[in-house]
Amino acid sequence: MRIILDGMGGDNAPAETVKGAVEAVKLIDDEITIVGKPELIEEELRKNGYYGDRIAIEPASDVITMEDSPVKAIRRKQDSSMVVGLNMVKEGRGDVFVSAGNTGALVVGSRMILGRIRGIDRPALASVYPDISGGHPGLLVDAGASSESKAGNLVEYALMGSIFTEKVWGIENPRIGLVNLGTEEGKGTSVTKDAFQRLKASHLNFVGNIEGRDVPAGVCDVIVCDGFTGNVILKLTEGVAMGVFKQVKNTIMAGLKNKIAALILKKDLYALKDSFDYEEYGGAPVLGVNGPVIKMHGSSTAKAVKSAIIKAVPYAREDVVGIIRQELLKIEECDESDYSI
Amino acid sequence: MRIILDGMGGDNAPAETVKGAVEAVKLIDDEITIVGKPELIEEELRKNGYYGDRIAIEPASDVITMEDSPVKAIRRKQDSSMVVGLNMVKEGRGDVFVSAGNTGALVVGSRMILGRIRGIDRPALASVYPDISGGHPGLLVDAGASSESKAGNLVEYALMGSIFTEKVWGIENPRIGLVNLGTEEGKGTSVTKDAFQRLKASHLNFVGNIEGRDVPAGVCDVIVCDGFTGNVILKLTEGVAMGVFKQVKNTIMAGLKNKIAALILKKDLYALKDSFDYEEYGGAPVLGVNGPVIKMHGSSTAKAVKSAIIKAVPYAREDVVGIIRQELLKIEECDESDYSI
Repeated sequence: MRIILDGMGGDNAPAETVKGAVEAVKLIDDEITIVGKPELIEEELRKNGYYGDRIAIEPASDVITMEDSPVKAIRRKQDSSMVVGLNMVKEGRGDVFVSAGNTGALVVGSRMILGRIRGIDRPALASVYPDISGGHPGLLVDAGASSESKAGNLVEYALMGSIFTEKVWGIENPRIGLVNLGTEEGKGTSVTKDAFQRLKASHLNFVGNIEGRDVPAGVCDVIVCDGFTGNVILKLTEGVAMGVFKQVKNTIMAGLKNKIAALILKKDLYALKDSFDYEEYGGAPVLGVNGPVIKMHGSSTAKAVKSAIIKAVPYAREDVVGIIRQELLKIEECDESDYSI
Repeated sequence: MRIILDGMGGDNAPAETVKGAVEAVKLIDDEITIVGKPELIEEELRKNGYYGDRIAIEPASDVITMEDSPVKAIRRKQDSSMVVGLNMVKEGRGDVFVSAGNTGALVVGSRMILGRIRGIDRPALASVYPDISGGHPGLLVDAGASSESKAGNLVEYALMGSIFTEKVWGIENPRIGLVNLGTEEGKGTSVTKDAFQRLKASHLNFVGNIEGRDVPAGVCDVIVCDGFTGNVILKLTEGVAMGVFKQVKNTIMAGLKNKIAALILKKDLYALKDSFDYEEYGGAPVLGVNGPVIKMHGSSTAKAVKSAIIKAVPYAREDVVGIIRQELLKIEECDESDYSI
């Protein structure tokens, strides 16, 4: 496998990106190509003491910034690290593209350069939902690729999320939950009501509607919602978890007696805080396009880059994209019967 | 002022409801009428040692349960505590109605019995968003009265929330935030984009789009969103906060050394947990109907009932409903000019 890494995208590129690649290459048998300005990337490789031959450089003179308008940037910045990297995957010169760059541009670029999988109306961004209650993390789809969704889009998200969590995470028969304002059938908007019926009739392991309070409780493996709701869920979870931690810290640090207790607990509480950390989770796949693409958090550190590269390997090797393609072909063939996903 | 209390609605009625009324009446100068089955309510009053004359009973033979379908229940259960109580407010026999009963039925009943305020397309349920980061609580509108909203509805929610937080909470020039998937102007769905422009052009103190992570950070006094998003926000906040606490507790209780520290911190940490508690916040107003109505949490205890009754007094006394009505009339009169809310 050859992993194509966007060397210039994200807040901490190229320093943290290259450092993450150097750390990752020690742990995998695969090769990495870093796309970007060669002199900058070479300098970072040297800084990290890397002189091996399993990290290559592909030159790209331009960068898509966080402020760039996605569609314009993909069209005009043809020699940007993102466009060059996506083209490498398209041309078969790489097996998976990993980037911490502009999210909108990565989704648009994946769709424009790699193309949508036949049968998929809208590609989605899947994000790892952190493990809050001590269960296990879930995959949230859509995390914000689209702001509005039709019922059919939600069903596509469920199907793609089910295949991804089964093949990449190794979860047997993944449980699919639909975010809604009540658990009862018949609750919600016209879109969620319609999606509920379609998911119920599908071959997926649909566990029904889930409410906001169920999302962090680990009741399902794939959390399905429109991109607006998904974006709010991810950011609100971060805000509430950090808010509660801040308050716990303030409580613990109030008064000498508490401070002594805090000293005892400090290490364990910090370990807990880390367990909510996105850096361990290895990035979010862009699902529904003809090639594996992984989006990392814009402020990814070397640790996050390393995790994303390691998790990218099974994504490419298990041919998740190919399986999604086949599943959709099956559905197309069966469309005249009463089979429905 | 006479507060009309639904004696039968909610999981802990009538026991906790009556107990809350007995505790509240000691702290206010106003009178309370409890609506419900007289023999049950009298028994609870006696249990709580109340023999005064500031709590009256209004008989109602029926109860709307949590499982009842809202519209059907309001139409058919004419002698339910909820319908009788709402009619008392309509007829001027009471100044505010407070209920822990079926939320959908209370919203539908308020609209059907009291009627919408002229100029309001959709009444909303406003809910107190707990103080997570140590700032102060906010008012979230809509908390789930409607599952879908148009831009005009969001502007109405903002206007009503602004008046409520100013008059009942005493916040000068309340800050209005619009929940969206990014802070920049131009982000979001067609509905939030349109609402953004209308709010920007209004006389309200609109602070712009807020993201999920800003919601618990106290950046605004009124959190405006559609009812689907509002429902997810409230329940997710509860789920994440409780999940983090559970994990903190597990961490603290792991090992003898930690347990000693835990003993020291226990009291303060429980006090913190209580600060996230809905019971202190005094219920959520149904806004946009011709009369003050307060919804309490379905599982309200006596403490929550007491808070709701105490907070209901300024809601009625400040004539928030009348002020909303006047503001909308002003807008109607100015509609031919370029004045817009």
